[in-house]
Amino acid sequence: MSNCKVTFYPMNKEIEIPVGTTLKKAMDIAELDFDFPCGGRGRCGKCRVQIQQGSVPPSNTDYDHLDEEEIEAGFRLACTINVDDDLVVKIPLTGTEGHKILVDAAEREMELKPHLSKTYRDMPRPSIEDQQPDWNRLRNALSDGKSERNYRISHSALQALPVVLREKKFTCTAVVSGNEVVGIEAGDTTEKLLGMAFDIGTTTVVGYLMDLRTGEQLAVASTMNPQTKYGADVISRITYVSQEADGLQKLQEIIIEAINKLIGKAVKDAGCVRDDVYAISVVGNSCMHHLFLGLEPKYIALAPYVPVTGLPQDVDAKALGIQINSAGMVYVLPNIAGFVGADTVSVILATEMDQSSEIKLAIDIGTNGEIVLGTRDRMLSCSAAAGPAFEGAQISCGMRGTVGAIDSVSLGDDITYTTIGGEKSQGICGSGLIDVMAVMLAAGVLDRRGKIRTADEAAGTKAERFAHRLVKHDELNCFLLARAEETAHGKPLFITQKDVREFQLAKGAIAAGVNILIEEYGIEPEDITEVILAGAFGNYLDKHSACAVGLIPSSLEDKVNPVGNAAGTGSKIALLSAREYRRAAYITDFVEYVELSASPNFTEVFAKALYFSGKED
Amino acid sequence: MSNCKVTFYPMNKEIEIPVGTTLKKAMDIAELDFDFPCGGRGRCGKCRVQIQQGSVPPSNTDYDHLDEEEIEAGFRLACTINVDDDLVVKIPLTGTEGHKILVDAAEREMELKPHLSKTYRDMPRPSIEDQQPDWNRLRNALSDGKSERNYRISHSALQALPVVLREKKFTCTAVVSGNEVVGIEAGDTTEKLLGMAFDIGTTTVVGYLMDLRTGEQLAVASTMNPQTKYGADVISRITYVSQEADGLQKLQEIIIEAINKLIGKAVKDAGCVRDDVYAISVVGNSCMHHLFLGLEPKYIALAPYVPVTGLPQDVDAKALGIQINSAGMVYVLPNIAGFVGADTVSVILATEMDQSSEIKLAIDIGTNGEIVLGTRDRMLSCSAAAGPAFEGAQISCGMRGTVGAIDSVSLGDDITYTTIGGEKSQGICGSGLIDVMAVMLAAGVLDRRGKIRTADEAAGTKAERFAHRLVKHDELNCFLLARAEETAHGKPLFITQKDVREFQLAKGAIAAGVNILIEEYGIEPEDITEVILAGAFGNYLDKHSACAVGLIPSSLEDKVNPVGNAAGTGSKIALLSAREYRRAAYITDFVEYVELSASPNFTEVFAKALYFSGKED
Repeated sequence: MSNCKVTFYPMNKEIEIPVGTTLKKAMDIAELDFDFPCGGRGRCGKCRVQIQQGSVPPSNTDYDHLDEEEIEAGFRLACTINVDDDLVVKIPLTGTEGHKILVDAAEREMELKPHLSKTYRDMPRPSIEDQQPDWNRLRNALSDGKSERNYRISHSALQALPVVLREKKFTCTAVVSGNEVVGIEAGDTTEKLLGMAFDIGTTTVVGYLMDLRTGEQLAVASTMNPQTKYGADVISRITYVSQEADGLQKLQEIIIEAINKLIGKAVKDAGCVRDDVYAISVVGNSCMHHLFLGLEPKYIALAPYVPVTGLPQDVDAKALGIQINSAGMVYVLPNIAGFVGADTVSVILATEMDQSSEIKLAIDIGTNGEIVLGTRDRMLSCSAAAGPAFEGAQISCGMRGTVGAIDSVSLGDDITYTTIGGEKSQGICGSGLIDVMAVMLAAGVLDRRGKIRTADEAAGTKAERFAHRLVKHDELNCFLLARAEETAHGKPLFITQKDVREFQLAKGAIAAGVNILIEEYGIEPEDITEVILAGAFGNYLDKHSACAVGLIPSSLEDKVNPVGNAAGTGSKIALLSAREYRRAAYITDFVEYVELSASPNFTEVFAKALYFSGKED
Repeated sequence: MSNCKVTFYPMNKEIEIPVGTTLKKAMDIAELDFDFPCGGRGRCGKCRVQIQQGSVPPSNTDYDHLDEEEIEAGFRLACTINVDDDLVVKIPLTGTEGHKILVDAAEREMELKPHLSKTYRDMPRPSIEDQQPDWNRLRNALSDGKSERNYRISHSALQALPVVLREKKFTCTAVVSGNEVVGIEAGDTTEKLLGMAFDIGTTTVVGYLMDLRTGEQLAVASTMNPQTKYGADVISRITYVSQEADGLQKLQEIIIEAINKLIGKAVKDAGCVRDDVYAISVVGNSCMHHLFLGLEPKYIALAPYVPVTGLPQDVDAKALGIQINSAGMVYVLPNIAGFVGADTVSVILATEMDQSSEIKLAIDIGTNGEIVLGTRDRMLSCSAAAGPAFEGAQISCGMRGTVGAIDSVSLGDDITYTTIGGEKSQGICGSGLIDVMAVMLAAGVLDRRGKIRTADEAAGTKAERFAHRLVKHDELNCFLLARAEETAHGKPLFITQKDVREFQLAKGAIAAGVNILIEEYGIEPEDITEVILAGAFGNYLDKHSACAVGLIPSSLEDKVNPVGNAAGTGSKIALLSAREYRRAAYITDFVEYVELSASPNFTEVFAKALYFSGKED
């Protein structure tokens, strides 16, 4: 036997390779997106796969990183395997597939009135007695003999017209946008009218395939934002664009490509084709908005932080390279400011905050926390530069919310925690971080100024029972969150004094933003009737912890309402209703933007917000 | 001296070539469009040039083809010359430059209100106190603080916006079309706003460069329609499109290319650049219209002869490949019917026939004669299939109206004629043909049925004095128009019996069309107050002859008014006034189309029109 067959699950990919090829090489050949964090040197123990069929004797390295039970269950480190047998290999989910991406959110009622509609017409054939030109004939048919609506026709639809009309004996379906016929199809195709609503996040991109006639959601597809390679956050991407000659074009191209792939995936899942898709809507923060449209993002990052546009933009799908029906249109929601983008507008659209008579507060926590406060009479917004702590960066054991991340921490007799996927812990993600801070405060191991007590200091206080967790590591005071034997990588997880400081900066930024808006609005926190937490993160964090650490005013704890991916919901709404899309323009006009850095007492408010205001008991 | 300098006039092109280079080669190097019909072998004697400075001893070939006087005047055959001296060579006009192309026509007054306008704004710079997005800032500035006009912005203008605004400290000029900002330029560029009006004929293309702010004509450029290579008339071009896989694309490409060249030439002549041109207008017959827009022309040629559209079409210049300012737009006037095109609409627009209370008749004579009859209350139109006789085809000695064509014929003691350019005659063009028929009728050599009398038959009649011209040629009765010694090619020019029959078909078709419209309208010829002759041909023909041969009802002779290239004038008007352009849509709606072939008594009327109704004396 000179060749072996290797089948990879769950992607169901089968390849043939010569005996003795490494599995790493085989995965390369199969073009799998699989991480070897240590480069395949048997060090990190992260490249675990499960052999489901075929023989792979465990290596010494496997014994170093895996336990008896795991080896028994067929787990091996991919980097150690030389393929000598036909294998069926199960690959654990990685990348986006392992991410929690929130795609469902509380939907709201609205009028279904998409930007495009389809109208079927069966027309009299031309004759010597009726020599109307094709387009005049169709236009008259569309007007139904009533006072003529002033229809126009796109050049490409006009080009298609004579042939399409004669394909099915002058029966046809016109695709109409506003008063323009943008597409023309032979016969009756009114049953096919799909659209896709996108939420382009800095990290992930989600698309919802919608039936524009019924409002029904047919499929969801998501992926990592491929721009991540060029910078994890918006500032580093703007820097990339500024420094590379065709940086803007490059970043636009890859996001368009990603969107095209998502469309392809979604229509396949729903059993239809790209041509059935006539419209997409797009929301994102101002930087994602600019990169998607190929607009210079530089001035977002430079004072006074001005985006190119704060109005909705309709663009031909073709002009952007979006691969949908040739009549397709792209509807891009507007930005409020350089750091309060279309995603925030979309949240307002989804939650109808702008139509509420009661004061509501919306927070979307991320690298920049967008905060909106107000009623239908007045709304304020701001952006708080939280930094990436909530996304796991700059925290010593921080990680994104993927498999193995500690996502919640509780205080009982001891500290307990859960991980995403129930796997052994590898680090801590944002929601876990807020919890552990709250727990540390409650346990008395953290004081109001954010200092971690030493074991000595804890002696004689209620924190005493956690003295064994109060250790020094790299000369820093630390709180031992997970012992080495509890973790996937065999190293303990600490919350260091530096981690606490980073967290304070992050939560302080959000809290300061909230407080400045409250002050600017001239109300007390208690006047707020609902705290809307938008975004995936808001959905996963524990509201009690969030209030305990002072991220949200503690008086509002019972009013916290996580609404999930409201930006995605807003995108769907803007796709399904042209009226709601137009409302987005009013929202951007209506919502006042407060530049925090220009606020006279910003420093004071921010400094105060660094403290843990929660009760220490 | 190893190099000679050769300067060509009238193009004023100067080149340097090695001594001994042939002039043919030199013309090649100078990229002159000059014909050597026999390939430069000294056979045809057609490649005459005039040496204005420098020495070129005449060759034997020169003596074969040129007379003493001509040689004395410096005429030589280009193909025989080897350049041994610095020369100044005058090149006779050839190709399109030798054609009579009518570019001036009676202009009329109208409101100057182009489709695009430019607005200059000096805006406040963004600051932390004023963080409006760029587009919102511009939009507000354009609205002048008044109730906000609902401006949109094109995607490409939006892309340019952030950089352009910062180029000259937030001073900029917006190019506005309707309510859309289609272009954006740094600083004040309001002084540059040009447009070009095109008349795409089957044979020739003329473009008028206009200043859209003043209505002033800055330059005119014209060329042969390069599609001529693929068929002289519309039917053969439609056939080409139907038979060749990418025929439509090909014919569209070459007309667009020709238009781009004309734009280049005109802006150069006017001392400006392509970027200063923001709009072009286009008129042409339905086939030219379709080929220009890349629309399938097939159904124009098939019963019931339906064009794709009878409405104006606005298209992005970029989408069509028209090389003007990137914000540029193309405005294409609409067709009335498959054979009554935008050129006819343009004639109505130029002459304001549609606003007249008096009955007017307009005729544009060509391969298809477009005829319009009526008042502001009712207008009829038709197309008469005259065939190419008026353009010189299918007439034994027929030719286009270029240098050497007999363009007028008179009856005195004998027959006299003039030629275009005053050169020796080579053939006869349309206006000459009508004259010669009228002369033959007046001289009595042609009877009312169109029979040419033989010399014998002429004996004893008033035609007797022309008996020497009544000859047999190829067994046909002929009228000798020019003796061999009078012509450039040394062969006699005859009007044969077959030529007369072809002419009868052509003039009969036009006359039948006129008569059917008059009948359909329910009037007598005498009720018509003006006969508008549109097109170059109408300008050159003799109205007395036209009436004498029955092309135009003879009772209307004194009412004939040649208006020149009214189609071109209409194109200018549609370019300079968006309101007039929109009026074109009303005109196409308003003008009723009469399908001559469907007229119940067409055969009878046509048969009658074949006769020469003019007085035979």
